Amino acid sequence: MSNLETTLRGISPINQQRLKAAQTHLDALAKPPGSLGALETMAVRLCGIFGEKEPSITRRCILVLAADNGVTEEGVSAAPKEVSAIQTKNIAAGITGVGVLAKVFGADLLVADVGLEGLLDAPGVENHKIRSGTGNIRIAPAMSRAEAIAAIECGIALAERAVEQGYTLLGTGEMGIGNTTTSSSVLCGLLGLSGDAVEKVVGHGAGLSDTAYAHKITVIQEAVARAAVDPLDVVGILAELGGLDIAALCGVFLGGAAKGVPVVVDGFISIVAALCACRLCPTVTQYLFLSHHSFECGYALAAEALGMQAPLHLTMRLGEGSGCPLLFALLDAALAIYRGMATFSDAAIDEEYTGQLDKLSF
Amino acid sequence: MSNLETTLRGISPINQQRLKAAQTHLDALAKPPGSLGALETMAVRLCGIFGEKEPSITRRCILVLAADNGVTEEGVSAAPKEVSAIQTKNIAAGITGVGVLAKVFGADLLVADVGLEGLLDAPGVENHKIRSGTGNIRIAPAMSRAEAIAAIECGIALAERAVEQGYTLLGTGEMGIGNTTTSSSVLCGLLGLSGDAVEKVVGHGAGLSDTAYAHKITVIQEAVARAAVDPLDVVGILAELGGLDIAALCGVFLGGAAKGVPVVVDGFISIVAALCACRLCPTVTQYLFLSHHSFECGYALAAEALGMQAPLHLTMRLGEGSGCPLLFALLDAALAIYRGMATFSDAAIDEEYTGQLDKLSF
Repeated sequence: MSNLETTLRGISPINQQRLKAAQTHLDALAKPPGSLGALETMAVRLCGIFGEKEPSITRRCILVLAADNGVTEEGVSAAPKEVSAIQTKNIAAGITGVGVLAKVFGADLLVADVGLEGLLDAPGVENHKIRSGTGNIRIAPAMSRAEAIAAIECGIALAERAVEQGYTLLGTGEMGIGNTTTSSSVLCGLLGLSGDAVEKVVGHGAGLSDTAYAHKITVIQEAVARAAVDPLDVVGILAELGGLDIAALCGVFLGGAAKGVPVVVDGFISIVAALCACRLCPTVTQYLFLSHHSFECGYALAAEALGMQAPLHLTMRLGEGSGCPLLFALLDAALAIYRGMATFSDAAIDEEYTGQLDKLSF
Repeated sequence: MSNLETTLRGISPINQQRLKAAQTHLDALAKPPGSLGALETMAVRLCGIFGEKEPSITRRCILVLAADNGVTEEGVSAAPKEVSAIQTKNIAAGITGVGVLAKVFGADLLVADVGLEGLLDAPGVENHKIRSGTGNIRIAPAMSRAEAIAAIECGIALAERAVEQGYTLLGTGEMGIGNTTTSSSVLCGLLGLSGDAVEKVVGHGAGLSDTAYAHKITVIQEAVARAAVDPLDVVGILAELGGLDIAALCGVFLGGAAKGVPVVVDGFISIVAALCACRLCPTVTQYLFLSHHSFECGYALAAEALGMQAPLHLTMRLGEGSGCPLLFALLDAALAIYRGMATFSDAAIDEEYTGQLDKLSF
């Protein structure tokens, strides 16, 4: 069985020597140094992650974790909570956004129920239910500490199993009505935001009315005030304010990093889970790749807290892991550059010019 | 032969009826309306461009146009001008950034010499030389009006031929030492910038020193003052301050739009050419797709002038058309969403919920 403490101890920094060698190789390619921007930094980091091994990202899987949230009884989401289970089935059937995009860029999906209400018997949905939904965070903890740890360990186990099955690149996704509310609440906990400051991390979701939006902020303010969490107690924050999907995704980031594979962040819920993982173990950051800059306003603060920037600006806000396949394509591009471009000597650009190419203005 | 006036008259607005039908279809897919952001707007616009026909973007070609710039004698580029020809050969050989990325996302390259100095006899480089290099824009016009028109018409002819050969998606790229200087100058002409304002559109290229950067600004200020162009006279601006690559790329945008295919903008040089095309015929904008937000500081102003935003933020500044293949991948994703996702009724999300999904907060 996976164990949180053991996993945290098993996460190693990426290979600095390989990282530097990769940078040296990229600088020898026939282009002004750094001119391929983020594609270069992606390639370098992939090399550092794979260390002695050749980077290989052709076997890729997006882990989509589904759970229900008790806070939906506060009316923070216009969609009824039944949509969580229905859409989870549809994701497993491959007919939703993430499924279609995964096919385009050659990724598999693993769909798991980590806390939907009731029993979901659907093809392709694994049952890893920690509990059936969560408490309403406005008035009670979402779950116990033990359940939060169990959810994290569930995510760790799923990531580890995926790597053992041969996947070398993971993506993260989720489904759960109400999970922008829990994600905003967890982010408040991590960043120590309360009262008026809460507004900074609460979005209109997928088009909440102004009245519903104001109510959502109030609910989160009350939840945050009730829980009075310690910003350094990640497990406590997840237990008090979280969702089972966020906790389990946090585990996916930890498990992926422990197994030495890159893990791609999707949107708002996913990045909050990633921030939880990085608070538990800052080294995890080295294994993360952001995909798209979510339209949800809390995303920017979470990205800032991680010290990272997402390369794709698509005003997407679907969730499900739908940003991951797009980033997979950019990682493919980054490795192709690393492997396929000519060096200055191949390209017969004379030695005398080569030395000046750091000042090259094409 | 292509004729500029005939081409401009032949550019039609995209099909508004198909555009609306496409939006209706996207809104019927099982997701909160608009939640796939720019992927949705891309799909809708592709449908509008292809009109009665099914959108098809599998046959794609990046037109890379190369030319030399007389202004290099002012020392505005650290790289010697000989690099233009050498790197043009390398691009045609497929061993540079754009070639590698084109392979990843299934695009062909067409490399043409529209104004390199001297004769370039290299496999895969078509000779469409308008003249051998240009005048030094600090002290003289780059070319005559007739030559500027010939260069535009050359780009039109290349785009039209590509479409006749079966390509239904075009990308744009360039090679020419000194062409960030000419592009900044043309942009100044189009936006009516002079004196201190010039600095806003001049970048450090690929790492110019502060001294060289200050000199580059001075050269552009002097060129702009000398030319004293009319901001509405696009041909005059290209003749006075341009490059043959910019003028010919302007023609590619015009020719692509006239033939009814989408044309992808790459970086700074490419977007300045696109802005020239849209000033000659504003309808061209409907056929354009931006790829990446170039690191060159003038890019942002040109994008603003076009009223568009680039989805990829990769701090790239290579040129060659290297951003186009990445955008092709996003266009593939957009069409896959359009064609492959289940509708609300397929997805069995009950009628009673469907009506509420515009307020859906996943």
